[in-house]
Parts: sequence; structure tokens; C-alpha cells
Amino acid sequence: MSKVRKQTWRFDQPIYLGATGTVVGPLEARGPLSASFDKCYEHLHCGQKSWTEAERALLRRSISFCLAKAGKAEGDIDLFLAGDLMDQTVTSNFIARENRIPFLGMFGACSSSMETLATGAMLVDSGFADNVLCAVSSHNATAERQFRYPTEYGGPTKLTQTFTVTGAGAALLTKEPGKVKVKEATIGRVIDWGINDAANLGTAMAPAAADTIWTHFQDTGRTPDDYDLVVTGDLSGVGSPILDEILLEKGLDISSIHQDCGTMIYTSDQPVSAGGSGCACSAVVTYGYLFNRLAEGSLKRVLVVATGALLNSSTPKEKDTIPCIAHAVLLESAKEG
Amino acid sequence: MSKVRKQTWRFDQPIYLGATGTVVGPLEARGPLSASFDKCYEHLHCGQKSWTEAERALLRRSISFCLAKAGKAEGDIDLFLAGDLMDQTVTSNFIARENRIPFLGMFGACSSSMETLATGAMLVDSGFADNVLCAVSSHNATAERQFRYPTEYGGPTKLTQTFTVTGAGAALLTKEPGKVKVKEATIGRVIDWGINDAANLGTAMAPAAADTIWTHFQDTGRTPDDYDLVVTGDLSGVGSPILDEILLEKGLDISSIHQDCGTMIYTSDQPVSAGGSGCACSAVVTYGYLFNRLAEGSLKRVLVVATGALLNSSTPKEKDTIPCIAHAVLLESAKEG
Repeated sequence: MSKVRKQTWRFDQPIYLGATGTVVGPLEARGPLSASFDKCYEHLHCGQKSWTEAERALLRRSISFCLAKAGKAEGDIDLFLAGDLMDQTVTSNFIARENRIPFLGMFGACSSSMETLATGAMLVDSGFADNVLCAVSSHNATAERQFRYPTEYGGPTKLTQTFTVTGAGAALLTKEPGKVKVKEATIGRVIDWGINDAANLGTAMAPAAADTIWTHFQDTGRTPDDYDLVVTGDLSGVGSPILDEILLEKGLDISSIHQDCGTMIYTSDQPVSAGGSGCACSAVVTYGYLFNRLAEGSLKRVLVVATGALLNSSTPKEKDTIPCIAHAVLLESAKEG
Repeated sequence: MSKVRKQTWRFDQPIYLGATGTVVGPLEARGPLSASFDKCYEHLHCGQKSWTEAERALLRRSISFCLAKAGKAEGDIDLFLAGDLMDQTVTSNFIARENRIPFLGMFGACSSSMETLATGAMLVDSGFADNVLCAVSSHNATAERQFRYPTEYGGPTKLTQTFTVTGAGAALLTKEPGKVKVKEATIGRVIDWGINDAANLGTAMAPAAADTIWTHFQDTGRTPDDYDLVVTGDLSGVGSPILDEILLEKGLDISSIHQDCGTMIYTSDQPVSAGGSGCACSAVVTYGYLFNRLAEGSLKRVLVVATGALLNSSTPKEKDTIPCIAHAVLLESAKEG
């Protein structure tokens, strides 16, 4: 089989998630996955004076954990791939300024987690890099004030709305044997079914997730039985059933193995409306909880489908609908048996 | 020689710029390179009702020219790599929504032109894609109102300030033999020497350009005599001599072969202060003028060093200095003799 089949890249070499780092804020710390994160900040300010600096602290710290666990220094890393939700991805840019690693900035909104991981794995597989660091961040207060209103206003939220996860996730890609393999990636197309409500991104993104998942199964010839989990990024409680239904109409039933990071990261009684979102949502669930499960072998094969809504704060006011994308990465446990 | 030497990727396969498309606005149309562009709009609105739509029209049109000249349809393209200056790179996202090509959004500010081209060439070289479309855009009115003030205010400009080029450039990367080869790429690091004046980005970016150019010569072992031109993206009349001086202090004299797209695209009597800037500045000069010169063989080897200032409209107000980056791509004429 060739290493490309339509939209799906197949990595011929064994590429490993050598190590990961995950850092979250106080609400995520009280969620069901808190034990899988390296660090939970007790306050949204993360010890900083501003929200901007708080988000940078999250990204910086997630990378520190990742590199420390991998036994690597910044100088050992060939490339840094990062993205975030801030205008001009400034959180990533400012951390790249500190670590001085050759840098490719990427933007796929909340899909940036798997966009960077897919691109990084391709770089390692093709021999253009030995060690690639991928990282993303989001912060509830920086995202809310940029895309909606400052959280200090205490504005009401719609039930369809998601809650931006405060956190950051980093992963090191390498050929050095590790516990979790990166096997394939399916690069998404931009899909827009005409949703124009920026407070209902789960619905807007569900068709993009469906397109990428459908393509992944077509490209690989597998069936949902071949997977332990198909995990979407941040469709939330609203978008997840829509995804399942779109795929069911096309004859693909993933409902028994589909979970969503946005609903996994919080308990149903936490004040997050439809669930979590943000670049960090899929990143911390994947690099924390799923990484651990794959490393120990209790999950064997997981498709992580990070979803992204590619709007900005102006496009809804200009009456544009919301273009969305989803990028999928196939992770496998390296543990035998 | 291995295909990676520190920060420089060497493409083992012959990778070609199969075709390019360039579209510009009225001021660029009156500049010295106008004959090299596929289309010059007579009005900044580019036939659209808003600046936002005008920028999208530029990007859309540059891609149409590129694909038409290459004899390709959108369905022939494996990947679309694009970026722009708008918050959340929405110009690129909305064009990706139309063309439905699997999409990787990238952000390197004005360095996005060579960031996408370098990444695209790597994808073709490694066999993960056969045909990659790379494109970037910028529009004077969308950029000015986002980063500074709406142009309608008619505010004064500083002499160190650059003028965002209205335009878009697209390039098709392929292994099918063409007239211009993409040979190498040097991926930059984020450099910040402490400049905090957003109206003096040429000065802020010069050290990043110097870092990438110095690294390129170190990695390849070549000297400036081996190049016909080293072309920077948008250092302008202010940043260009600073770059030459930084490199001269390190013992590398590029002054006789160094030109800057920001000064090439306008005549000295056009009202653009220090020169042109924006993603489109390096893109239209490279994919228009330089592509033609390389194709006809009157230039043999050109290093294009696209520079980017990785700030947003908030970071200067938060008293942050300006992180900058530069990515370089080595283009060679495929013409013998």
C-alpha cells in the first residue's frame, strides 16, 4: 500500500509519541480526567498577571513536562509546530520566541492539535526531522473575550454553547521506540453546511467531522469494529449526536465507539453548557487520558478527530456562515498482546 | 548529503513550481513589476462590496490563474496550504471552503508565503502529495484597519512604516517537469531583538532574516557568490540596510546580491513610506517577476527569504516586543546553460 491514499497519510516508519505534557486550569482539574494531567492550576491566572500571560504559562509548562519526560532539551528538537486561538496565534509565537526551535506556525482553530501532530508525524516519517514538538493551547478567558465578551461581564450563555478549555498539550514525535505509535493521518477539507450561529459550533462542526471520518474509513477500508474509540475534539453534547446521525445515514455506525473530548473532560454537572472546546480540549484529553490508556494497552487503536471552526470574531457579524474542518490521527498502542 | 542539515531541508527529488498565479491591486499595478502579474485590479474593491470580500477575490483569482496555467482542476490537487494576515486566517479558510481541497492552514504572518511553499515542497518530495497548491493574500484596507486604523481615517504614517501590498500569489508544486525548481528550504526560528514599534517592522524583522540567511549559508556551505539574488520579503528601505549590516558584522556580505520585495514592487515616488509588506508582497514578486526571470533563465539561483512579524493588534498595547521569523526557499532555473 502506498503511503498516501486519497486524504490519508500512512506512516511507513514506526513513529512514536515519545512523551506528552498536559496542563489545565481549575475547572478541568475538577473534571473526571484530572488525574491524567501533569499539572492542574488552581486559579485561572496560572500565577500570571494577565490572561494573555496565563495562556503562555500553560503552553510553556506543557512543553516543559513533555521535554522533561522525554529526557530532551530544546536544542534536541528539530522543529516546533504550534497553534492556538489567539489572533495571529500569538501564544505559540511568543513561546517559539523563548524556545528558539525552528518554528512552523499552524492554524486550524481547535483542530490545530491534530493538524500539528499529523504534520509532525509526516516530517519524522519522511526524514526531514528526527524530533518534532507539537503543542497547542487555549484559555477560557482569552478566548471568550476575543470571540464573545470578557468573562468578567458574566453574560448569559446559550445551552448550545461550548466552554473553552483552559489548558495546553504538548507531544514529542520521534522514531525512538515508545509506548504509543502514530500510524496514519487523514487531512480534512473545509465543510460548511450553513450554520451561522457562533454559539452553536458543535452543530457547525459535525459535518466536517463526518466528512473526515467517512473519508478515513473509505481510504483505509476498515470498519468501526477495527477501532476501540473514535474520539472527536469538541463537538460537545450538541454536535456529537448530529455527527453520529450524519454517518448513520451514510451507513456508517460509529455510535458505540464514539466519544467526544468536550464531554469527556467535564462532568455533566459542571457549568459548561454543551461541553468543552478549544485547542486544548482535544490536546489534553489525547495527550493525557488517551495517551495513558494507549501506553498501558487498555486501548489499542484510537482515531482522534480534532474539529475546528474556522471563523473569527468578525465573520458572523458580516453574515458569513461558519467554515469548519477536522483532521484525524490514528494512534495505536505499542504494547503487544 | 542527507536531506536535512540542521535547519535546511534539501529536496532529493526534482520539485517544480509547475505554475503560478499573481493578482494585485491598483498601486502595485503602477509599480515597476506590473507586467509580471496575471491581473491588476483597477480598484481596491476588486469588484466586491467589502474589503473582506475583496481580499478573498484576490486569493480566489490567483488560484484560478495558477490552476489554469498548470492545466489542473481543483480535484487534481492533493493539498492546499494557505495563510494570510486576517485574524484566524479567515481569507484562506473561506477560499478552502470553496475549493474543497484537503487543507492545512498555516500562520507565519508575511513569511506565510515561503512557509507554505517550503512545507508544500517537503510534502511532494516525501511522496505524501503529488500536487500541492500554496497561496497567500493580503489587502491594504483589511490589514490596516485590523492592525492600525481604517484607511478611511486618513491617519498620518511614519516614514519607517510599510504599506501592505494588495494582492495574492499562488503556486503549484509538483514533480512534473517545469521551468523552476524548488531545491531547498531553511526553516526559521523566532527572533526578537526588543523592537516594540509596530510602525517599524522592517527593523524588527531584520535580525530574523539575518538569522535564517546566516543559517542557510552555514548549513549549505555556500557563499553569496553562488547566488544571483537573495531576496527578502518585506524588510523595506528601513530594514534592508540593517540586515546587510548585521550580516556584514558576522563576515557575510550579501549587499551586492540582496534585494527586497518591498522595495522592488513600488517605485520610490509612490506613497508607500518605507516600502511594501504583507503576505502578498513576497508572494507576487516571487511568483510573478522572479518566477519569470528563473523560467527564462536570466536568473539561475535565487534565495527567497520571506520575513514575518508575529505580533497581533493587542501585543504592542500589552507592551510586548515583536517576535519575528523568516523562512527561506531556494529556487533554481531548470533551464540549461
